[in-house]
Order: sequence, then structure tokens, then C-alpha cells
Amino acid sequence: MGFMLAPHHDGSPLHVSTQTPALGETVRVRLRVPAGEAGPAGLGLAALDGVSVRSNPNHEPRFAPAVLLGEHGGWAWWQAEVEVENPVHGYRFLLTGPAADAAGTGDAAGAGLPAQRWLNATGLHDTEPLDAEDFKLVASPADIGAPPEWLASSVLYQVFPDRFARSAAADGRELPEWAIAAAWGDPVDPEPPARSTQFYGGDLDGVTERLGHLADLGVTLLYLTPVFAGRSNHRYDATNFDAVDPLLGGDEALVRLVEAAHARGIRVIGDLTSNHSGDAHEWFLAAHHHPEAPESDFYYWKDAANDGYESWLGVPSLPKFNWASKELRRRFIEGPDSVVARWLKPPFHLDGWRIDVANMTGRLGAEDLNAEVRQTIRRTMVEVNPDTILLGESTNDAASDFQGDAWHGAMTYTTFTRPLWSWLMRPGSEAAGGIGFAGNRVPSYTGRQFHAVHTRFVAGFPWRTRLGTLNALNTHDTPRFATSALPGAVPVALGLSVTLPGIPVVFAGDEFGLTGVDGEASRTPIPWPLLEQDRAADAAALAQDTTRLYTELIALRRGQPALNGGGMRWLHIGDDVLVFVRESEENSVLVTAGRGDFSVTIPVAALGGGAGDAMGLQPLFGAEVAGAPGVQLAESDGEIRLSAHGPSFAAWAFSGVKTP
Amino acid sequence: MGFMLAPHHDGSPLHVSTQTPALGETVRVRLRVPAGEAGPAGLGLAALDGVSVRSNPNHEPRFAPAVLLGEHGGWAWWQAEVEVENPVHGYRFLLTGPAADAAGTGDAAGAGLPAQRWLNATGLHDTEPLDAEDFKLVASPADIGAPPEWLASSVLYQVFPDRFARSAAADGRELPEWAIAAAWGDPVDPEPPARSTQFYGGDLDGVTERLGHLADLGVTLLYLTPVFAGRSNHRYDATNFDAVDPLLGGDEALVRLVEAAHARGIRVIGDLTSNHSGDAHEWFLAAHHHPEAPESDFYYWKDAANDGYESWLGVPSLPKFNWASKELRRRFIEGPDSVVARWLKPPFHLDGWRIDVANMTGRLGAEDLNAEVRQTIRRTMVEVNPDTILLGESTNDAASDFQGDAWHGAMTYTTFTRPLWSWLMRPGSEAAGGIGFAGNRVPSYTGRQFHAVHTRFVAGFPWRTRLGTLNALNTHDTPRFATSALPGAVPVALGLSVTLPGIPVVFAGDEFGLTGVDGEASRTPIPWPLLEQDRAADAAALAQDTTRLYTELIALRRGQPALNGGGMRWLHIGDDVLVFVRESEENSVLVTAGRGDFSVTIPVAALGGGAGDAMGLQPLFGAEVAGAPGVQLAESDGEIRLSAHGPSFAAWAFSGVKTP
Repeated sequence: MGFMLAPHHDGSPLHVSTQTPALGETVRVRLRVPAGEAGPAGLGLAALDGVSVRSNPNHEPRFAPAVLLGEHGGWAWWQAEVEVENPVHGYRFLLTGPAADAAGTGDAAGAGLPAQRWLNATGLHDTEPLDAEDFKLVASPADIGAPPEWLASSVLYQVFPDRFARSAAADGRELPEWAIAAAWGDPVDPEPPARSTQFYGGDLDGVTERLGHLADLGVTLLYLTPVFAGRSNHRYDATNFDAVDPLLGGDEALVRLVEAAHARGIRVIGDLTSNHSGDAHEWFLAAHHHPEAPESDFYYWKDAANDGYESWLGVPSLPKFNWASKELRRRFIEGPDSVVARWLKPPFHLDGWRIDVANMTGRLGAEDLNAEVRQTIRRTMVEVNPDTILLGESTNDAASDFQGDAWHGAMTYTTFTRPLWSWLMRPGSEAAGGIGFAGNRVPSYTGRQFHAVHTRFVAGFPWRTRLGTLNALNTHDTPRFATSALPGAVPVALGLSVTLPGIPVVFAGDEFGLTGVDGEASRTPIPWPLLEQDRAADAAALAQDTTRLYTELIALRRGQPALNGGGMRWLHIGDDVLVFVRESEENSVLVTAGRGDFSVTIPVAALGGGAGDAMGLQPLFGAEVAGAPGVQLAESDGEIRLSAHGPSFAAWAFSGVKTP
Repeated sequence: MGFMLAPHHDGSPLHVSTQTPALGETVRVRLRVPAGEAGPAGLGLAALDGVSVRSNPNHEPRFAPAVLLGEHGGWAWWQAEVEVENPVHGYRFLLTGPAADAAGTGDAAGAGLPAQRWLNATGLHDTEPLDAEDFKLVASPADIGAPPEWLASSVLYQVFPDRFARSAAADGRELPEWAIAAAWGDPVDPEPPARSTQFYGGDLDGVTERLGHLADLGVTLLYLTPVFAGRSNHRYDATNFDAVDPLLGGDEALVRLVEAAHARGIRVIGDLTSNHSGDAHEWFLAAHHHPEAPESDFYYWKDAANDGYESWLGVPSLPKFNWASKELRRRFIEGPDSVVARWLKPPFHLDGWRIDVANMTGRLGAEDLNAEVRQTIRRTMVEVNPDTILLGESTNDAASDFQGDAWHGAMTYTTFTRPLWSWLMRPGSEAAGGIGFAGNRVPSYTGRQFHAVHTRFVAGFPWRTRLGTLNALNTHDTPRFATSALPGAVPVALGLSVTLPGIPVVFAGDEFGLTGVDGEASRTPIPWPLLEQDRAADAAALAQDTTRLYTELIALRRGQPALNGGGMRWLHIGDDVLVFVRESEENSVLVTAGRGDFSVTIPVAALGGGAGDAMGLQPLFGAEVAGAPGVQLAESDGEIRLSAHGPSFAAWAFSGVKTP
């Protein structure tokens, strides 16, 4: 696919009159069509006779006509009114007119015969598409609510507490029997039993002491993997949810951390395991072999004696919760005295939760209580503090659970992480662990394939869920991206993370260029002493360069209105280069992400609603300026030519989109 | 797309060890891969290193290895075991091996690097696909059950009682005040008020008298649109569900009809409106303006006085049911004393229901009780007589409601009817009424587009639901196909209806070549006198020819095991021709459907599991034999060449598929 000039719509404020419609509210939706002398570009129609919006209230199609508002900067703007009749109200555009050219369109109908084109979340289609690919308006009920506005402009920093930083207090703590003490500089041991019991002793005061680093990076949201005591270094096997692990400094350390973070403008979210507890959890211990215990119905027993039980992927240390239990709901997720509520309230003030294994929660055999559980969690949060966020881990095809009824965003690897790896990893690479490549093999994708897969998976999300979904290069469950990336690919990957719709993610240590071949090796203790004491060393130099890259790209993201909730429009999709614009009324950002050499020509008119060649592209990152190497941008004859050698990432700001 | 030789799987017994797995049962699934000297064909792999099955129990991916069973007739057969862990258990195949050729596959990875291919219900993919496109195993709970085996081999005949045939008794019946009497030969008046009140007086004894015609045609399933009294000719505005309309002959006439049909081996299903009643229904009359009535909560009132109310698409005569009402459920759909049950029991013995407006049932605003209602209906049916079928009307994208938890099949126009019209209608045709073309315009598709749309929409159904879904050329709600079809297209369309997976449908009168420009005009009184009295007339000659065509193609369908539940494999997809095989152990059927001239060459080895050139293709329909014109089939050098001039439909039988 070369240069694209096609009708466009997305869920951003340029195209949708409200991000938070109520049920029954009428929303104005807008379509932009490239206007030209030879008919509307990109449609295969000789002319555009009409535009309408097809929505599907109560699963019955309804058409609403769109009116032509006028033309601005080469675009014709059409607008239609849609009443939001159901909590998720799908819609798509129908464009009609005489076929331009039977051969060109693949139509059997000859030129001039009436033809139809559909525009939905996966693009433009000349045949009837699936409802699942519709654009979506979401009217959440009041007790679920819309995500807070700050979510879409967050930059997330993920900390795995045992491995981030030790405060001085950590030296005085006695380790439990299961823990295998490790010195901070010891290599991570991925073999059982050390795999989950090798214990470095990072703690929450250690995080508090490093908040200056987070502030310098520019991140705005700190995500802590679990802080409740478990019998492992990862703490996903909680023994209770009522106290912060004393090995992390206890409840007071969490209070200190959240207060200090908030003072720096950094929000903090925790991590809850709604799918399972640890087998040393007080509830499990009470119920195991005790069918008469009040906690007996919290788990799935395989026999009357409460002996055998269901567990996460058959791992006995992680017994699976049975959400049919009302008492479990009351203690854990429902109401202001529940675990979910408690940590959002004073004195802890967490700003939300990331929910572990959200995809499997409440699901077993014929039973599927997932929707009840996720909605109950969110209702409880709204009751305590609606200005909180709820992210769900669902690392594969997640969209069916993420339709705006609870989760604000997904920790998934389908939309960004896996296609990114497939485009930018060294061909033939392996990737073990939770990133989820079949057989641990990273298939190699072209840029076109990256675009196809990205589009396929983001299309299932309502726009606002897409904005709240994580653009992670890697996490605590995956290899680190840098480990097997093509040379020069890290800036390309991080550039896409901060410029595509979604939340940029820094897994602690990424910003120092750390590597790790799987989820275990990635849980690297951050080598602070090395970084601080020996700045001349190679690792320190790499760390400095990488930290600068992260700081600059995070600043790019935070500084540009269009990158925080603005529209998303592809301009060019090649095997080795992707070009797109993010757009808002305030400003627009042009982005190029190159895997290799490229040279692309784009009409200036295609860039946006600005006024031809006077749009004043301002280099933001990676552009060749004042002799510094980078992506070249040359303007002439109403066109811009973008070119680069080798891997590259660049962005330019220009004028916002003017609408009629 | 030219000739296709690619890995294949579908839900048929050749590839899946049971059609009715229980929850927890282990099912064997088989993949066929064309084996060849230059590596497996159609994959872009130099060799096939391994095959596995990815399923997604509890929304968490799991891989099971497949083993190579052996090769038969040019196919390598792989088999894997899948435990059905959820009621709908999705699965897809992963094929891995060294890339054959980077240029050929679009892969960035060079030849020889590990590559992956996915096979799911939409075909072969070189990137990660959506879970929604997985193949599906369905384990229905015992109180829902699997569809009866006879469903998939049914041929349906649809009767709109007012317009099919009058018995002598009809002359003696007094018409109600709303009815506008019409003589049988009068033209249909599509304008209100006659549109719904023009009354021809067809009755059930009229149908009984014509059962010989149905038997001669070869249909096996009679579907009657509503037989309960209403205040319209269509009776979708029931005044009660407790008695057959006296204008149709009353309860006794239904008993006579069903008994006579059963005696001829023809089953009979009725039509229920679960979305709404008529505004003269006894329940509505009791509740309207009577908030204290026991029936008050059967409907959605807009005020406390029970004055205004919700209705189907705002039509006041069709007030919408509120399924939150337990009493409504008890009376209408739940348990052996309900309406749903009553008509399946003696003395009526209906063989099932088609449910009207199934798509909107129970859906309004934030409320969606659709799954509860459809499952309750089916549970009640199973309680009374499990050997019954349940079809749901859902004329657009239906798959999300048809996952095997209630409906056995869909009356939808997405999978077959609309794409068929778009391929075979005169370019630029209009089609008013419920067929659902946007703006009443029929877009023109190529054969490739027909295939793409058909595949897109059938992929969402589990295999057994696909087999129970209607392949209708038209219904009582649409124009008749013949009205604007390309000359010669009717045999092509009907041929596809009887050979593609799904239930062939004859809307009464189709078999006489009747036409109708919209759903009203299609409700043609059958011109029996004309047909019988003046066989030399043009209309009668057309009718005879068309009846012969229907009889022959229905016989084709019923006579070939492979067409009744056998597998479905495409061989060639062109703009003007489609070629495929239906396959079973017993036999195989090769089908060509041509819109215009074609000439296609296919290796004999691709046809199936038979033994090369000794497969003995036997012409079944439309082939050039003994000098009769038709589709030519020539065999030489291990290839067959299929060719025809103008529109054509042909089928050949050959040997069944041998598996290792």
C-alpha cells in the first residue's frame, strides 16, 4: 500500500461531539472525505451522492442521513446525528455514488452504476462488513462511569517491587523461610525453586526514594505489581489482601509512597489477583479440608472434603476463586468495606487497580461470571472514588470483555506489543514467557502486516478503551524488547508507543537499556550503583543515552495535545515505514517510524485541515535539523518528501484541524 | 483468486470426531494439508515442521500438538485432541515451518526462517487472527440440547397462509371488520391500509389439500407464518396465542394439516412473535390503561397510566414485550403449560418454531434479556419434545446470538441471500423491503466478493448452526429473487441454495417462477387455477419449467449424502464462476456455479481423497451429457477442465473421502 488518501472517521473529539454520551443522548458524528476535481479520492466513486450512518439499536439496523457541512483544506465534512440507544452503540458510515471505474474497483457493475462503500473501524470496504467492526459509542451507566480524563494522557511506569530499589530499612528485615536471599548484583535465577523465591528485598521506601527519577523521566502513573504478602518474589500468590507486606515496609510505606508520588503529580495504582489467591491465603487455609468454613465456597473444590481444587493453569499454589460466592464478593470486591475499596480510601489513596488475569476471572466450564465481577469491582471503585482507573490484564484477543462496562483499558499484547515485536525484532528471534508468541517464536511481519494486525485488534475496542490500553514494549511477564531488537529499533518502538493511541509504558529498567530473555530475566534488579558510580562504563553510557531517549519521547507525548486523545489517521503504510498523523483542534503531529531506508511522498493537502503549504511543520523529534542526522523532510510543489536511512523515528507538529 | 489448493478443516464429520460433544469431552480434530514434492501447497512454507491446535479455554490460549496420521490421495492428515472446556470452545490451527520464499509470502523474514500460518474459519492467515474467527465446538447443556439430526437435511417450504390456498370452507367464513376482501386473482395492493388488511382467505385446509404438491417437490419441512388471529393478513399482530385463527379453520385445521403432513414425511413448524404482540392482544387490552392488571408488566409503558408504550420500530399496533415479567414468561415461553410448549404437544404436534424478530427480542436501552428468552424457549421445547427445531429471525449480522445456546439456525440474509443477489441480480437493481439492502439498492458483487462476504458471515457460526441456517433466495419479507435476476440466474441461485451448507428454502410460489418487487408484492396468491387450467399459457409453461427445476435440484440435495452435513471446500473463486466440493465418507459432490462464460482447470488430485483419475465423476445436474447442453467437463493429464457459456449450474458425484 502506498500513500493513502481516504475518507476518515475515528472516535476523537474532531469527529464525535462527546466522549461520554448518556443513554438516549444524541451524538453528532462527522466523516471527512477528501474532495477533489476527479471525485472524492480513495473511494472508487465518480462522485459522492450521499452519506449516511448505519447503526444497530437493539440489533436492528437504522440509517440516519448525514449532511454536508462544508469543505475545509481539501476535506468535505459530513455530519449525522446518532441517538445512543444501547450502552454500546455501534455505527458505521455508508457512502454512495456512481462507480468510477468497474475495473478499478473490482465491481462487476459498470462505471456509473450505483455503488456503495462502508467505512468502519477496520477501514473502507466495498462489501457488507461485520457489526463487530463498527465504530462504537459507549454510554456507561452512572454507577460504572466513564474513565477519568487523565487516563488518556498518562505515561505509565511499572515497578516490580522486589527488584526496583532497597531502602536502608530492608537490611534489617528477617526473611521468611521460603525466601532465598539474593544480593542486589546477583544474576536472576530463572530455575525453580529460585525462580519464584529468589528474594532481592526491594521495598516501597526504595521506590519512594527514587521518585525523583520517575519525575525526571516524566512519567505520570506508577503501577506497582502486588504489594500484599505472598510466598514468592512476585507476590501474585497473596496470603491476604488486608496489609502491605511487612517485607515491603508495611502499610505505612505505601502511605508514604503514595503521598510522595502525589506530591510530584504521579498517580499510583495497585495490582489485584481476582482470578486466584495464594494457597497460603487466610481464606484458602480456612477452607482447605474444611467444608464447613465460611470461606468454603470461595474456591472450586473437586471433592466433598475440600481437598482437591481448581487452580490457575493447574498451578497448586494459585487456587482459583469461585465468584458465585456472595461472601467472597462482599469481602473482596463489593462495597466500601471490601478489599477493592479499602486501598482507594484514606490513608492509602491508590488511584486505581490493574487486575491480574482479568481474562480468566470468574470463568470455568459452563460458568462465566466475568462480567459480574468486573462490573462489581468498578461499581465499588466509583462508590469510593470515581477519579480512579481500572485496567484489566487480558494479553490476547481482549475486545469482547472491554466494551466499556468496567475495564478502562487493557494490558494486552495483541494490539501493539506482539505486532511491534514482529516488525522490529531480528528475524528468527525467540521470545519465551508470557508475551504469548506461539512456540516462543516471533513471526516476522512487514510494516503492512504490523498495520493489518494492529488495526484488526484495536478495531474491537471502543475509542476510549483504545486510549486507555497499554502500548507496552514489554512488561514483567515478557522478555525485554531491547534484548533481540534490530539494531536501532528501540527509538522506533518507543516512538510508536508514545504516538499511537494508548498508554506508553516503561517497565522499570527499560530506560536504562536493560535486557532479559524471558519474563524472569526481565525482572532485573535495577543496577543503581552501577548507573551512579561508573558513568564511563559501557552499561552506564548506554543507560544514559537510553534514559535521554525515554525522557525526550515521554516529553514529546506529554507536550502535544494531539498525542493525548487526538485522532489517528494513517498516511502511508510500507513494509519498512509507517507514516501517520495524530490530530486535534489544538494541533497535529506527523509521525514517521522507519525500520529501514525509505522515501515517501505525500501531498501537503493530505496532512490535515491546515492551509496548504503554510502549515509550518515544526520538528519535535528525530528530524534532520541544523545538520543533525535524522529523517529528512523536503517540501515542494505541494508535496512533502520524507526520507531516511536505517531505522528512524521522527515527529513534527503543525496546525490543528479546522472544522466547518 | 484462481485455483485453490490449501490446508483444509471444517466442522464436518470428516474433520471432527463428534457433532455433539459434552462439556469436558475430548474431541479429535483433523487438518488436511496438500502434500507435494515442493513442500505443502498453498502455505508458503518450504516444509511443514509441525501442526498444533490453539484453543482458548476460559479466555486463555492453550496449544495441543497435532500428529501426522498419514497421507491419502495427496493429502497429509494431522490430528489433535481438544478438550471442550467451555460451552463454546473456539480453536484454530497453527502450521509452522521454514518460509518458502520471502518475496512470495510477503514476509520480511528470508526464506528458511521459521514462519507461522493460522487456519481458522475465514481461511489461511500469515498474521495473528481474531478469536471470533475460530472454528467452534459447541457443548450445549442437556436442557438446551443439540439440534435434531434431521434439521441439516431438511428442505424448507414457506407458506404465508392467507395467500397459499383456499379450501372450500373459506367461502362460508364471515370476514372481520378490518379485512378488505380480495378475490384470489386480484393483484396485491401494497398501499396502506390494504397493505396489511387486503384479505384473500387462504386457510390451513387449503394447505392440507396441496400437500401433494409439496411432496412432489420433495420438500421435507413446512414453515407456516403465524396462524394465530391478528388484525392483519400477515397475523404478526396476534390477538392471542391460544387458538388458531378461525379464519384459517381453527385448531382442528392445524391438527389436520400436521397429521397429513407427517403422514407424507413432512414436518411442520410455526411462527411466534417473541418481540411483540398485536395491540388487540388480550394481554395488551388487559394492561393498556390498566396499571393494576396482572398483565401490566408484560409491556414497556411510557407513563404511569399505561397509556404510551414501546412498540416494534414505533409501529403502535405492535407493542413490545417486556421480558423482565415473570408472569409473561410463565404464560408464553416457560414450562409445559406455556404457549411455546402447548403447540408442540398433542393434538398439534408442531415440530418446532421459527421466532419472529428474534434479534430485537428482550432488547431495549440498557436491558438485554435476549439470551434468557431464547434459552428459556429452547428449554421449554426440550422439556416437551427435544426432537424439535428452533430457528430465529435475525436478518443482519446474527452470529453473536447464534452460538449454540438456543437457536439451531438463523433466518438471516447476510450469509447467502444478500451476497447472492449482489452476484446474480441485474446491475443497478433495486430491492425494497425487508431484505435489508441499504437504500434499497443492490450493490453488484463479483464472485470473489460473493465468496468474501459469504465466508465473513458464515465464519461466525458454529458449524452445526451454519448447517441449520437458511439459504433463502427470498422470503415473505423480500422481493422475489426472480424479479430482477440476470437472465438464466435462477438455476444458479437455487443450485447454490441446495449445495452450500444450510437449509434450502422455497417461498411458496418461487417454484412457479412468480415475481414480486417487494415484500408485499411477493405475498402473491398462488395462481393455482391458471397453473392447472391453461398449461399452454406462457405463465404455465414457465411454471412447469421452474417447478421441474426446483424438483430436480431439491432431489439433488436430498439424494447426496455429502450435501447433507458434508464438508465444504472451495476449489476456485472467480468473478464469474465458483467451484467447490462438498465431502463426506460416503461420497463427494463437485459443484460449479457460473454467472457467465468460464473455463477452469483443476488438478484431479485436488478434488478429494479419491484415487487420481479413477474417481469416476458422475453427472448429477447441469453437465453436458449425451449431447444435452451444459457445463463441459474434460479430463486429461491429471487435470479436469470445466467450462461453460452463459449462466450455468452443474454438479457431479464422485467417491467419498478416505481418511487414514
